[in-house]
Amino acid sequence: MNVRETGIDEGISEVIVTTRSASGTFNAAPIGIITTTNEHFVKLYKSSRTFINVQETKKLAANVTSDVVLFVKAAFDDLGESHYSSLSGFPVLKEANSWIIFQAALAEKSTEYSLFQLTPLTIVINRKELKAINRGLNAVIEATILATRYLRVNDEREKEELKKQMERYAEIVEKCGGHREKEAMGILEKKFFK
Amino acid sequence: MNVRETGIDEGISEVIVTTRSASGTFNAAPIGIITTTNEHFVKLYKSSRTFINVQETKKLAANVTSDVVLFVKAAFDDLGESHYSSLSGFPVLKEANSWIIFQAALAEKSTEYSLFQLTPLTIVINRKELKAINRGLNAVIEATILATRYLRVNDEREKEELKKQMERYAEIVEKCGGHREKEAMGILEKKFFK
Repeated sequence: MNVRETGIDEGISEVIVTTRSASGTFNAAPIGIITTTNEHFVKLYKSSRTFINVQETKKLAANVTSDVVLFVKAAFDDLGESHYSSLSGFPVLKEANSWIIFQAALAEKSTEYSLFQLTPLTIVINRKELKAINRGLNAVIEATILATRYLRVNDEREKEELKKQMERYAEIVEKCGGHREKEAMGILEKKFFK
Repeated sequence: MNVRETGIDEGISEVIVTTRSASGTFNAAPIGIITTTNEHFVKLYKSSRTFINVQETKKLAANVTSDVVLFVKAAFDDLGESHYSSLSGFPVLKEANSWIIFQAALAEKSTEYSLFQLTPLTIVINRKELKAINRGLNAVIEATILATRYLRVNDEREKEELKKQMERYAEIVEKCGGHREKEAMGILEKKFFK
């Protein structure tokens, strides 16, 4: 199976991981798939819904997309049911460019997270979409990571520093982003900084 | 003509712009193509080779690629002849995913730069390649911009600050990049910080 064709390549690929619980509830979260020369891994924090679901079903789907609104919504909201489609009974995101369903096997444990090795079971390419590099797109991704950290931090000075970094990314989005990047940044700003 | 299919979308698309001089010498430089709802523009600094060539031929080619090694080389080295191909007699980059040749018409002048409005003349899609978001890829782009600034700045404190920011991006590349991102960052580091 050619995972590379889906857009998941060497290094860490930022995708939206969809899972379901044993009882059938869907979840979506932005997560990095780690790819070495020939192997795929994912590091899941034990406090996350994704971790619990993967424990229960031993599966996850990687949804490859460059729609940053989906990333922000998956990070901080529940994605509505209308976003999901089903692939062999497993939840995937309708709007994704490609889907990979992985089998997940525990590879390494620590107190905070577990590392799972991933084996591709099913691959679907929905559309092959070219996208030139856009600095605004990645600025939203970096800002999303900062916002996640902002939620965990209690120290006021650190919070201020995160806010400042966030503002720098907001400027890049304003200058370089398209309307989806601006919409995504708008959601983040409304949530954290207004 | 459907420019969007080439990967150039609303906002600023970072591409490699190839041009030729009246006498036939090729040039490549990483440049942002500005796209509003229906129009395309480019801002060219008057000191740049691209500006001089566009003045002479009224044309430029946008090469859409996510190969960051090409970006770094086009920014700081001359790309070797082996990288070029010819499209209707105009230089383009062999490895690009898509090519757009634009007619460039002067739209606005200032002392430092000129803004050109771009009209697509020819569009070629070489391959439709999906690529998941990779934080390392954009870290190389941001580091390339910092390195360009580093060359222009004389103030030692500002230079130190740029170096520090660059190190942060180098860490992201080390953690998230694939081998092309690491190679590109290696070129930058060797050039500026060793």
